[in-house]
Amino acid sequence: MNALERLKSDYPWIQTPLVVGAPMRLIALADMAVEISKAGGIGFIGAGTDVSDLHTHLDNARKLLHSTTLSTNNDTLPIGIGFINWGANLSLTMPLIQQYKPAAVWFFAPSSLDSLADWTNILRHIRPEMKVWVQVGSVKEARDVVQRVRPDVLVVQGTDAGGHGLAQGAGLISLLPEVCDVLAGLTHPEWYAGPVVVAAGGIAEARGASAAMVLGASGVVLGTRFLACPEAKIARGYQKEVLRASDGGQSTARTKVYDTLRGTTGWAESHNARGILNQSYWDAVKGMSNEENMKLYDEEMGKGDAGWGEGARMTTYAGSAVGLVREVKGAGEIVREVRDGTKKLLEGAKAFL
Amino acid sequence: MNALERLKSDYPWIQTPLVVGAPMRLIALADMAVEISKAGGIGFIGAGTDVSDLHTHLDNARKLLHSTTLSTNNDTLPIGIGFINWGANLSLTMPLIQQYKPAAVWFFAPSSLDSLADWTNILRHIRPEMKVWVQVGSVKEARDVVQRVRPDVLVVQGTDAGGHGLAQGAGLISLLPEVCDVLAGLTHPEWYAGPVVVAAGGIAEARGASAAMVLGASGVVLGTRFLACPEAKIARGYQKEVLRASDGGQSTARTKVYDTLRGTTGWAESHNARGILNQSYWDAVKGMSNEENMKLYDEEMGKGDAGWGEGARMTTYAGSAVGLVREVKGAGEIVREVRDGTKKLLEGAKAFL
Repeated sequence: MNALERLKSDYPWIQTPLVVGAPMRLIALADMAVEISKAGGIGFIGAGTDVSDLHTHLDNARKLLHSTTLSTNNDTLPIGIGFINWGANLSLTMPLIQQYKPAAVWFFAPSSLDSLADWTNILRHIRPEMKVWVQVGSVKEARDVVQRVRPDVLVVQGTDAGGHGLAQGAGLISLLPEVCDVLAGLTHPEWYAGPVVVAAGGIAEARGASAAMVLGASGVVLGTRFLACPEAKIARGYQKEVLRASDGGQSTARTKVYDTLRGTTGWAESHNARGILNQSYWDAVKGMSNEENMKLYDEEMGKGDAGWGEGARMTTYAGSAVGLVREVKGAGEIVREVRDGTKKLLEGAKAFL
Repeated sequence: MNALERLKSDYPWIQTPLVVGAPMRLIALADMAVEISKAGGIGFIGAGTDVSDLHTHLDNARKLLHSTTLSTNNDTLPIGIGFINWGANLSLTMPLIQQYKPAAVWFFAPSSLDSLADWTNILRHIRPEMKVWVQVGSVKEARDVVQRVRPDVLVVQGTDAGGHGLAQGAGLISLLPEVCDVLAGLTHPEWYAGPVVVAAGGIAEARGASAAMVLGASGVVLGTRFLACPEAKIARGYQKEVLRASDGGQSTARTKVYDTLRGTTGWAESHNARGILNQSYWDAVKGMSNEENMKLYDEEMGKGDAGWGEGARMTTYAGSAVGLVREVKGAGEIVREVRDGTKKLLEGAKAFL
């Protein structure tokens, strides 16, 4: 089986080219994940570091999916769950996997390769049908993860992605081919066919998706684009700021400033996050103390939607593709638009010659 | 005429998809530029900030081209010249353009839009047949440049590029579609059809080139890849380091450190350069003083080829696609490989569906 056949066999409800919804922490919940899967993509619930409410989200998803007829095997819930592994609790996760039977789990930023192997082995033992996705941001991570945990899907994230990822990295245009070449050179045990490669980072519509397929991906992940769908659990101010921002390479940057302001500790030194530049960022660059900046941030939290914007202070994680996000559109519509557009572009690619 | 027809009409010797050699300062000289054009691409001499030796390089190019039968109009020399405008001297350049009649000039990093307009207007006045290429790195720059100087070609450089560029930016996967959308929304005077868009930054072979075409480019620029051709005027130590480096997002970074060490002043605060990380970089990160680091750099200059490498100090500008550069190959062969590979990939793009 080639990669596309594997995807169709592993996730029988999907249509290709595959569009995946990134597991954005506490923004991509049941509503978004279900709509994406219903449209023939794969939706992920962004559990992040805290699984204490995950049963609620999974319960909601199960209810929303109850009346649908998405084709799955063995009672599988046709969505996935995304974890930020360094902060998530494996023993609390185990019973949820047994109870809700998600189609996939997506691992990101484990505290170590050993810990990643534990998560993988234990959850595979509990539910062998469940697919394991692992997100990486470099060639080294790709090689290490594939050789150690044999993931079903490798999510290769370029540095243009919004939110957390490797502080240092390359865009998909060079990262993805280099990862694919290195993977092609690895030898695997007989039972393992290698990972299906899926691309993330800077993809918001059909052109980016088509480029990713040409670069070697078998599917694409969109995050920032899904911030602008009604199913996103997101403040109106945040969503408005995503629609406003343009020139994504200039209006966003990778930084640790927002983690500091929000008191988020736990991320490794190697990771930071891309967000839209705002007053907190500029003040930090100009040398304002963290204490003063955090105080102003805390005050801003009382302003509601007015807390987001260029001159405001609430964090607005988004990728460099934010300038391509210009309207709010249903999550399912986004999936169909990107899939159909990609099909059309690649079927007509001779026209570029 | 569409963009591809315009390219074929403006540069009659080329074959499409168009592969362009970046005007790498003092590395891309007559040998490389001529070989690239002879193979059906467009080669550029990297004059950079100093045009005092440019007549020698143009003389060499003319001699190398003498026996060829490249199709050109009006005595045109079928190569271009690349300038780093903030440092280059316009009045010294004018007689060279008149004498050697290059097919194109490539402008980058002018001290102001006014200065860019001067260069463009004056050189267009001297030689109307000559095409003006302008390199930009953001949506704002693209809009400003197109509206102000009406370039024939807009080179859109993503942040994965090696050497100098905008310190802050996006990869081509999001930058290029956003630029194309903004350009499509501009209105032009009747005589101006808009620019042909060519992509640079992170492209080293056919996959990156094909992706760039799908993202909206009508041709691609390779820089780092041409560091590994026999025609590059480059120290063996530098070339060896380019072949060694892998995992380009991790082994290279954008920084001002190398400019500082080399005593290069003149670049705007907005610009820095991507190079392979070496001991100078790590020492700077660890807090070594510029004086001490410069002293060690100066000592390293005496070591010849041994001055390049991870633990060494000579500057090794390269893009994040450096991990895709694995062998030395003739400049003409590289052009043909990338062009043929891109053709094959795009003709067969349905296979990705």
